[in-house]
Amino acid sequence: MNDVALERIPPCSGRAVELGTADELIVIDPMGQQVSDLTAFARDDTAEYLSSGRSIDYASKLWLSTGDVLYSNRSRPMFTIVEDTCGRHDFTLTPCSKRMFELIYGETEGRPGCEGNLASALAPYGIGTDRIPIAFNIFMNVAFDAITGAVAVLPPLSRAGDSIRLRAEMPMVVAMTACSAGQSNNFSYKPIDFGIRRARA
Amino acid sequence: MNDVALERIPPCSGRAVELGTADELIVIDPMGQQVSDLTAFARDDTAEYLSSGRSIDYASKLWLSTGDVLYSNRSRPMFTIVEDTCGRHDFTLTPCSKRMFELIYGETEGRPGCEGNLASALAPYGIGTDRIPIAFNIFMNVAFDAITGAVAVLPPLSRAGDSIRLRAEMPMVVAMTACSAGQSNNFSYKPIDFGIRRARA
Repeated sequence: MNDVALERIPPCSGRAVELGTADELIVIDPMGQQVSDLTAFARDDTAEYLSSGRSIDYASKLWLSTGDVLYSNRSRPMFTIVEDTCGRHDFTLTPCSKRMFELIYGETEGRPGCEGNLASALAPYGIGTDRIPIAFNIFMNVAFDAITGAVAVLPPLSRAGDSIRLRAEMPMVVAMTACSAGQSNNFSYKPIDFGIRRARA
Repeated sequence: MNDVALERIPPCSGRAVELGTADELIVIDPMGQQVSDLTAFARDDTAEYLSSGRSIDYASKLWLSTGDVLYSNRSRPMFTIVEDTCGRHDFTLTPCSKRMFELIYGETEGRPGCEGNLASALAPYGIGTDRIPIAFNIFMNVAFDAITGAVAVLPPLSRAGDSIRLRAEMPMVVAMTACSAGQSNNFSYKPIDFGIRRARA
């Protein structure tokens, strides 16, 4: 996708874009060790949304990569992962949020976090904070202890220039962030780049 | 809770109940190796619902048990696990559904599954199928490979009479099932029992 113009999501912010069927979205970590929380809603009926629980169930694995399909709550394909140079993303945790920063990081007045930034980006589509689900947390590196179930948020494995390319399988509104949570991005609040190749010019 | 009258959820069906703050709900596997998918919505505003992603994040573990708190999407406590004689439940997979039975089990006309049964139980509260989230899958035994992320649905560890007791931390509408998915309950479609101890008589 060298021919695709890239746009930059500044640190600790979010963006929404519309995709048509067969459009391709590339999400790039330009500096390394940054996370982008991505969520999606069907453009024609936003009650249909990207479902981690369906996607994990159908793939029979926690970590999705090249060739895997991301499903909606209605069990319809929303994305296919066409290319993935990193290989490790999380699909189990909700986006960082104002309340999460207060509870886990001890901030007296939590920042909006990815939840707030996704909600702001999706506000023009009538989608509020309550409807931000578990996101597809691109480049987020969450490890699990198979015996105890303990969860550890580790620095991302992504290096500068790593990317994931997703093909849209239906018309969607897609929102994504440059993550605000220190634990997720090794306390290196960086931007995220993305580009879209339209199937129809 | 020997003083609490028990009710039975027949195999492959669901029930909804209302709980007040400090009410206790006990869910029992009367015969062993059966799963009950449980979900909950705030009674006063059903846009607030039980969130797996928040609960796992705040507990820093996949498998919740005695002493752990189940949170809403608004990061407020919904339940505290007061007692748990089994110790293994899943909080990562969406309820079995008509489409899931078609995709994974190859059924030509999928049964409603826990998703359909939860939605039927919640219909009087205006909550439809699209809004059934990842459930707290009581007694469901899902294992993860820490290296590959592979997911395996194993027979429940629950034996006849095992139970979990949950204290309600807010007024809620709670729905639960006797699970319809063979993989989840070792192909032994059994009932689930439950009882409620009211904080206020």
